[in-house]
Formats: sequence, structure tokens, C-alpha cells
Amino acid sequence: MPVKSQPKALAFDVFGTCVDWRSSVAREGEALGRRLGTTGVDWLAFADAWRAQYQPQMETVRSGQRPWTTLDVLHREALDRVLPSFGLGEMSDADRDDLTLAWHRLDPWPDVVEGLIRLKSRYIIAPNSNGNIALLVNMAKRAGLPWDAILGAEIARAYKPRPEVYLRCAEALGLEPAAVMMVAAHNSDLVAAAQCGLQTAFVPRPSEYGPNQTSDLAPGHEFDVVATDFVDLANQLG
Amino acid sequence: MPVKSQPKALAFDVFGTCVDWRSSVAREGEALGRRLGTTGVDWLAFADAWRAQYQPQMETVRSGQRPWTTLDVLHREALDRVLPSFGLGEMSDADRDDLTLAWHRLDPWPDVVEGLIRLKSRYIIAPNSNGNIALLVNMAKRAGLPWDAILGAEIARAYKPRPEVYLRCAEALGLEPAAVMMVAAHNSDLVAAAQCGLQTAFVPRPSEYGPNQTSDLAPGHEFDVVATDFVDLANQLG
Repeated sequence: MPVKSQPKALAFDVFGTCVDWRSSVAREGEALGRRLGTTGVDWLAFADAWRAQYQPQMETVRSGQRPWTTLDVLHREALDRVLPSFGLGEMSDADRDDLTLAWHRLDPWPDVVEGLIRLKSRYIIAPNSNGNIALLVNMAKRAGLPWDAILGAEIARAYKPRPEVYLRCAEALGLEPAAVMMVAAHNSDLVAAAQCGLQTAFVPRPSEYGPNQTSDLAPGHEFDVVATDFVDLANQLG
Repeated sequence: MPVKSQPKALAFDVFGTCVDWRSSVAREGEALGRRLGTTGVDWLAFADAWRAQYQPQMETVRSGQRPWTTLDVLHREALDRVLPSFGLGEMSDADRDDLTLAWHRLDPWPDVVEGLIRLKSRYIIAPNSNGNIALLVNMAKRAGLPWDAILGAEIARAYKPRPEVYLRCAEALGLEPAAVMMVAAHNSDLVAAAQCGLQTAFVPRPSEYGPNQTSDLAPGHEFDVVATDFVDLANQLG
């Protein structure tokens, strides 16, 4: 394998890689449940069920079955679909709208802010996420994620792992794909990025899906970097 | 006039409003001239001549005469057009490419970084500029402009003062136009923003075009805020 040059920019997957969506969505659901006087809901199972709509929904956009639609809209539609199975079918529209914004209020993993601050001093850092710009900006303001730019699905008007998302990310930064390193906790995301010519860094998040997670516990391919967390990534990238 | 609510986001014009393009481009030209052993060039006049191509070039995109083209490309084409009149027609392609990136290396006005840092603690702050994403990211990294997101012409695929640039900026942030305040040193930019429903803040930059500037010395319309600089803007906006 030819020695690759240092990347100029790092592009990050966000859901799972930077933020713990499962615990955060459950926490937001619990808070709403307390306010509504709802009891007996398994909010972690609720978070899992909501997230389970994600890939099939994006597939309807990827396949061309429906036109470009932002993740905020998909999240709201998925919520409507999921609520009845948790006995929450009577929730008001205003509460549904607010709960949808739980995805703007996700907590970062403990190493993320420190790692990003260090990486930012040397590299351009940006999300290359399926989240829309508003979601990613609001999340960053709340969590202190110091992005240089907000890239990803909305500027490509396509969802990962479609190649145009990775290529548009590099193009927007005025860089060749090989000058951008995709950082993700998911093998499939990195394989798609590598096929577009990006460099790759795998950072496992073994509890993204809870204590019984079986997927993405280890790199399944030859990636350029494998790091235990974002601080380790900053150490390895100098 | 109805009392408007506080904006949630501030969208900034960049060339002239945040950065002093004229002195910075002249400084970059001088440095290149020294390296090439060129003498007798009036680099401020050169900066003015280069910038004079800007509006007519964008007009070819606004009118639909040519498809969407980024400012980096327009800057390079304008450079080719301007160099011969300054006796620089023999400049190499590599030097032209590098000089084009002078627009990525513009210095902020002295109040800008302090003002933006203060404003960022309370508002979403983003450029809503005709500059492309790569240009704005590289400028921000070098100058320390702490943007929350990079918005503007490239995500709208249109140039200000086309309405879609202002509307796309608000939409990308998930906000109504009235929740976004456009900040600019140019009356025409703010008038266009107001027509799209954005709030407006005028910050004069009376030496943008040098000591003999005659335009945009004062607000020519009723804007929501008039501030002497970005620190004053931060004071006025709390």
C-alpha cells in the first residue's frame, strides 16, 4: 500500500461516533414522560425503536422513491409511527415537535470535546453526517462541538453511504478526497468513504446500541487509523 | 413598526464587513511581487481592479448566462483578465493559483474576532457570503473567526442579492427569516435581506475601498440596528 500523506481535513460521522443518541433520546423521553405523567414506558427500547426507522426511511430517499427530505422531517414521521406501540399515541403535536428536537440535544461521548479541540488546532474538522444543518448546529452549540463547517447530507442532498456525500464533502473544502479522513464508529460508513478515495479512521463505540451490542465492535477492514477514542485519535494524528 | 423579537442567528456578509480585502490582497500581491522581483506595481490599484470584476462576473451567474460557478473559479478568471494591465501577463499558472488563494487569507477588521466571540455566546453566527465554503473555512481557520456553520452562496447555488441566498440561510438553520439578522456594511445587501423578511444590522466600514470611499458611509434605510463595529454590535444585542 502506498504511504498516504497527512490529511488536511477530518470528516466525522456524528450519530453514534460523536454522540450517544440512545441514552440521550431516552433521557429526553423520560423527561417528557414525567411532565405528562406517563409511566411504564421503556425509554431505551423507545429510542431503539425510533432509531430502527432511520435506515429504511433514508432508503426511500436513496432509492429515489421520494425526493430529498431532511432528517428532521424523517425523525418526525418516524416518531408518529413509533409512538402508538409504546402507548403514547395520544401525544400532542407540540410535544411531538419538541420530542423530535431531542435529536438536536444529544450528548457527546466523554472524549469527544477534548479530542475535537485538539484535532481542530491541526486539521479542518467538520461533521459529514446524515443530520441536517440545523440539527448539527444546534447540537454543536449545546454540546460544545467546535466544528469548522457543517457538511454532510444536506449539502449533498443525498444520504450516506451514497458516494456523492463523501465526494461533496471533499469538494466543498476544496480538497481531493485523499486529503480528507472520514472518522466513524461504523465499518460500512468507512468502507463507502474509502471507495470514494477518502482516508479512514475507525473509532469503536461498543455501547452505542447498549450493553448487548454485537456489531462494529472492531474494525472489519484495513483502515488507515484505528483509535480507541477521539483523544487517542488526536495522539495518533499528532 | 411592530417590535421585533430577538434574533436567534446572525448572518454576516464577509468581504468588507468582516475582512479588509483591499489591504490584504495588496499585501499578498506585494509579497508575490518581491518574490518575483517585480517592481512598480500599485498593488492597491491591483486589488481594486481585481475586485471590480466581482459584480459583473456574479451577474453572469445571477442572470443564468452561466451555470453555478464558485467564487474561487471566478476569482481565478478575473485574475487572468486583470494581470496584463499591470504588466504581469507573464505570471505562471502556479503563481496565479496561489495568488487566487489570497482571498482565503484576508485579515479581519480589528474588532471582528472579539465581537464574534461575544456574539457567539448568545447567537448562532454564520457567514452568509458570496464566498465558497472552502474559501470561508480557510479564512476562518487563519483569522480565528469562530463560525458555527458556513452558509451562503454555495449552499444556495446563487449569489446575493438573489433572495434564495437569504431564504436558504434561514431554512438551513431551521429558522423563520425574521429570526435571522443579516449583518453587513453594504446598504444593498441589507435591503435585499429585509425584503426576504430578515432583520438587519448595518456596520459601516468607511475604509473598505480606501481613504476616498464615497459609498455606504452611513445607513441609507431604516435598519433594525446600526453599530459602529462588531463590539458595539455585541453591546447592543446584549
